[in-house]
Amino acid sequence: MKLAIDAMGGDHAPKAIVEGVKRFVEQYPNEPMELFLVGDEVKIASYGLDDPRVTVVPASEIITGEDEPVRAVRRKKDSSLVVAANLVKEGKADALVSAGNTGALMAASLFIIGRIPGIERPALSPTFPTYTGSGVVVLDVGANPDAKAEHLVDYAIMGSLYAEHVRGIKTPRVALLNIGTEAGKGNALTKEAFPLLEQAPVHFVGNVEAREAMSGDVDVIVTEGFAGNILLKGVEGSSAMLMKMMKEQFTSNLVSKLAALILKPKLRRLKETLDYREHGGAGLFGINAPVIKAHGSSDALAMMSALKQAKIMVDHDVVDKIKRAKAID
Amino acid sequence: MKLAIDAMGGDHAPKAIVEGVKRFVEQYPNEPMELFLVGDEVKIASYGLDDPRVTVVPASEIITGEDEPVRAVRRKKDSSLVVAANLVKEGKADALVSAGNTGALMAASLFIIGRIPGIERPALSPTFPTYTGSGVVVLDVGANPDAKAEHLVDYAIMGSLYAEHVRGIKTPRVALLNIGTEAGKGNALTKEAFPLLEQAPVHFVGNVEAREAMSGDVDVIVTEGFAGNILLKGVEGSSAMLMKMMKEQFTSNLVSKLAALILKPKLRRLKETLDYREHGGAGLFGINAPVIKAHGSSDALAMMSALKQAKIMVDHDVVDKIKRAKAID
Repeated sequence: MKLAIDAMGGDHAPKAIVEGVKRFVEQYPNEPMELFLVGDEVKIASYGLDDPRVTVVPASEIITGEDEPVRAVRRKKDSSLVVAANLVKEGKADALVSAGNTGALMAASLFIIGRIPGIERPALSPTFPTYTGSGVVVLDVGANPDAKAEHLVDYAIMGSLYAEHVRGIKTPRVALLNIGTEAGKGNALTKEAFPLLEQAPVHFVGNVEAREAMSGDVDVIVTEGFAGNILLKGVEGSSAMLMKMMKEQFTSNLVSKLAALILKPKLRRLKETLDYREHGGAGLFGINAPVIKAHGSSDALAMMSALKQAKIMVDHDVVDKIKRAKAID
Repeated sequence: MKLAIDAMGGDHAPKAIVEGVKRFVEQYPNEPMELFLVGDEVKIASYGLDDPRVTVVPASEIITGEDEPVRAVRRKKDSSLVVAANLVKEGKADALVSAGNTGALMAASLFIIGRIPGIERPALSPTFPTYTGSGVVVLDVGANPDAKAEHLVDYAIMGSLYAEHVRGIKTPRVALLNIGTEAGKGNALTKEAFPLLEQAPVHFVGNVEAREAMSGDVDVIVTEGFAGNILLKGVEGSSAMLMKMMKEQFTSNLVSKLAALILKPKLRRLKETLDYREHGGAGLFGINAPVIKAHGSSDALAMMSALKQAKIMVDHDVVDKIKRAKAID
């Protein structure tokens, strides 16, 4: 199991990345693996990571959040992201993990590593928290903002295989994100996709409305990237607003401050349930190797989760399973 | 000011509707107005509403939430909704308010009252709560799930006029819901709509991401109905999940129960801020008369807010203002 890791991507890089790698290797003390940590050698060394399974690969450039993705990947040949992607392309690593610029990671994955034959469009695929705690894989959340109905079928196959082999769900329930529950509801795209999904080699359970997306009633939700992105960010935004307003209310006088103090452990547990850091990063499915996009604000814990996720995808040959499913599709 | 009110629509009809009307007329004791309360005469009479300005109009049928909208409007000629819509068509009432089946209200409005000339597609337009408390008008949230770029321009004009004249915002900031903030981001539709919105007779401030939709930084958000519906229901669903999980955490032992009791007024204030009932119903803009869809679970307070909203739309001639804007567009 060999991972290429972009050490310079994300708000807290390289510190959080190196510390995440440290925690990850500590979790598997006796397992043979090779981790390539790509970036500024001096900075990486300063965080004192010492494990014979980790190799630092130098890269002199960084792609930032402000860079235009496609141009940056083409021009910054010695960026940590491009060098890491090339390790996967050359077969030196099995998977790629980055907390950096999402668009650049998608561009590097597409142009350098390439697509799985038969998958026209990759899909960005995070796992949302659910009320039941089981989580739900939602794809696509923005890699492909003008999807066709056949793309949604690919998403269903990829999401279902991921839910089964990485999240351990025996027969994942796959649903179509829609604006009504009955068959025949929706826009032109969902109306066209619905019968195709009924024929797809997945356990398709019909439409799901955004209101029920996080109920835990379904394991995989397929959608075109525009609506998926709106769902992801709408949920993030409203939860953040609610938490912020609650904090203001609770700290507005001494008595409520004290009461809030008592409830703090409860609130923390709630926050943990909703925490993206526990759920790892978003997979970029459809690329010819596992690619994990860790959250931009990843700390060491989030980074460790993303590395674990990449490891499980490699260990369970998820990409090969997608290839085989597409071959018999 | 004459309103046609569907007394039989919604989960708590006719009780909540009649009580909402009662509270509404009590708020304007000396104002001349005519309210037509349409539905089951006996049931409506049983809630003891006694105001000379309210006339009960009998209707023997009810369109339920299970009815297929278009068919129900065509067949149930003596339903409370169809009779109420006909009062508007015949000029006996200025506006229509219903808490019933949304699809049926849209169909009745389109087929019976008709569109504003030049507006191809009506838009369902609720006001979302915002962090700042000012609220944001979002349209469309599902009336038209396959919108064209020109429809989004109509939404911008209608939403801006509504925000200005009903919500009292001097120069409403109009934004396009998108999956990135920079111009040129998004799917084919938003890329086409962006330059059209720059030319539109509104104060267009660019793209807004779903994460910032409720920040209060913009007053009107335009979007095609599919994504708008996903945003609306995603926000509703995640807020409801958060509140439910919080309640469970807070009531899990005696000490935290007591602490939660102290915080109850704070939590109630938070809930009120987020409460749809305070923000009235969703306008159906583009119809040749003000049409307000009150929330299906409306109680008397929500119904009163919806009636007020219809009144302000009539008093400020919002429909005429839209017509004039379209004429010079």
